[in-house]
Amino acid sequence: MSAWDREAYDKARAHQQQLTKPPGALGRLEELACWLAGCQGQAIPDRLQAAVTLFAGDHGVAEAGVSAFPQVVTVEMVKNFAAGGAAVNVLAKAHHARLRVVDVGVAGDLSALGDAIIHAKVAHGTANIIDHAAMTTEQMARALQVGRSQADAAIAGGANLLIAGEMGIANTTPAAALISALLGVSPEAVVGRGTGVDDQGLRRKIAAVAKALARAGEVGTPDRCLAQLGGLEIAAICGFLLRGAERGVPALLDGFIVTAAALVAERMAPGSARWWQAAHRSQELGHRLALSALGLKPLLDMGMRLGEGSGALLALPLLQSAVALHTDMATFSSAGVSTEVG
Amino acid sequence: MSAWDREAYDKARAHQQQLTKPPGALGRLEELACWLAGCQGQAIPDRLQAAVTLFAGDHGVAEAGVSAFPQVVTVEMVKNFAAGGAAVNVLAKAHHARLRVVDVGVAGDLSALGDAIIHAKVAHGTANIIDHAAMTTEQMARALQVGRSQADAAIAGGANLLIAGEMGIANTTPAAALISALLGVSPEAVVGRGTGVDDQGLRRKIAAVAKALARAGEVGTPDRCLAQLGGLEIAAICGFLLRGAERGVPALLDGFIVTAAALVAERMAPGSARWWQAAHRSQELGHRLALSALGLKPLLDMGMRLGEGSGALLALPLLQSAVALHTDMATFSSAGVSTEVG
Repeated sequence: MSAWDREAYDKARAHQQQLTKPPGALGRLEELACWLAGCQGQAIPDRLQAAVTLFAGDHGVAEAGVSAFPQVVTVEMVKNFAAGGAAVNVLAKAHHARLRVVDVGVAGDLSALGDAIIHAKVAHGTANIIDHAAMTTEQMARALQVGRSQADAAIAGGANLLIAGEMGIANTTPAAALISALLGVSPEAVVGRGTGVDDQGLRRKIAAVAKALARAGEVGTPDRCLAQLGGLEIAAICGFLLRGAERGVPALLDGFIVTAAALVAERMAPGSARWWQAAHRSQELGHRLALSALGLKPLLDMGMRLGEGSGALLALPLLQSAVALHTDMATFSSAGVSTEVG
Repeated sequence: MSAWDREAYDKARAHQQQLTKPPGALGRLEELACWLAGCQGQAIPDRLQAAVTLFAGDHGVAEAGVSAFPQVVTVEMVKNFAAGGAAVNVLAKAHHARLRVVDVGVAGDLSALGDAIIHAKVAHGTANIIDHAAMTTEQMARALQVGRSQADAAIAGGANLLIAGEMGIANTTPAAALISALLGVSPEAVVGRGTGVDDQGLRRKIAAVAKALARAGEVGTPDRCLAQLGGLEIAAICGFLLRGAERGVPALLDGFIVTAAALVAERMAPGSARWWQAAHRSQELGHRLALSALGLKPLLDMGMRLGEGSGALLALPLLQSAVALHTDMATFSSAGVSTEVG
């Protein structure tokens, strides 16, 4: 992992004290700017170039009735991403982020989309985690590598801030299973309504997670946990975040699914979370627990539960604002403004 | 006051149900877009054109040692605004908002700034509210009118979202006095550290507010309260917000000072708050109470306490995002995406 630059951070903090505002008056914006300074290794960080990479995959557990939507929606939404009609497209455009969509495990055929998406399919979805390991060790390794390669591609394209998005009907179930297993908390404390299941659906989800955890047995390593309970897009996001931290490029985490992947990544490479900020607190029940385990405090709390990277993109202007203020504000001396009394 | 359009709101809500996302998955963004639809009287609201009008004024109570900064900083900061070096300048530029700065009551001479600012000085600051009414009834009427005229000017310039900013050394003291008087709560529950006074300064502020309240006596009408305890920039903001609500143009409220002005405005014209959203919860102690009295839930909670309009500008991209999503997302039918199971 890259070394986070404490000296650049300290210089950035000193710079903040010179800007024409009471010390600390910009609240978390000050800390965000200084954190980015530490990430970039320079007291005045470069403007943010954000890249969103959205990983799509399907989940065998969908057959257990854990989602309010049929599995075919994964394919349909990838087509919607390719056509530019989804929330993530609108927000990426509004906030000047590049968007790439990657099929890492969708159950349908997406070849007709050509180069509108990146084709890196490892399998046609995972196995149903109630009865089987989600994926083989080899599939997991390939999915992690897809994510790593995409982080490298985003950085090669000029990105200095990584955002992972996801799409996969039923994926709040494996995400809840991972968080439940890694944190040792009950499914009831983690499982939420995802896209909006009713009370019956919620009971099915809790039961599915409980059965998957019982089947998988001892948690073991984070790798084993990921293969047993995860998803192909979750593994790819894990690789994406790990590679970002290795390369010293910060990431803005989206919601429940991405945070579950981040939790796995932090367990694989402790200290990676130093490179991340949490964009928002989603509506999904277990998100708070996962964020807390990562030591991250969400920037927004807007009651969202969409995924795709939408929460991260909504928070992106906060980081952009923090950098702009840090860079462009006048100092007390340059503006001839008096400092504090006494 | 303009009639808020419930029918346009209901049509906007129906439109949200058609967009390619689970119903409700965009959380508060959905409600924000529909609220703007109700404000504009059309199911698909126009893109936001935000105008920030920053009102500056000085306060006689500054002589009681209630601020961490000397009074001359008001003049110095107005010069900084004119030169483009303050936080509000940086954020207005970043988020495409027009900025106008208005001298409605600065104690110094700003004529050298020419047309870089709007000169509408009612007085060289207020009287010290510990011993005197802040302003005469006639001064209050003039300051309210300055705000009204500026709302009209912003709307004439194409603005469909109004933001008020403020600058005035010591102005958290009159703002706290107004909130304390109007809500009938003790100064201790409202007074905060403002720009960053120490414990001794905090005690001086609380004492100043308590003395001012005792001197002013019975609260009486909101007009009387404003003249007794307010500030010239606070009165102007009050007029600005009242005129916006009368004209049916929504406003995004900044922090403690603007919310104090909004509270006076809501008391003068009950129902005005229908036209407002609260951008953020500031660090200032009493802000929460004032927001709650207005029935407003802040969008952001970033630990800020700068004023100027900075909190409102930071939240502006949330509203812009809400409108973009509402307008540009594909519908289930246009994108060929399946709706919920069952």
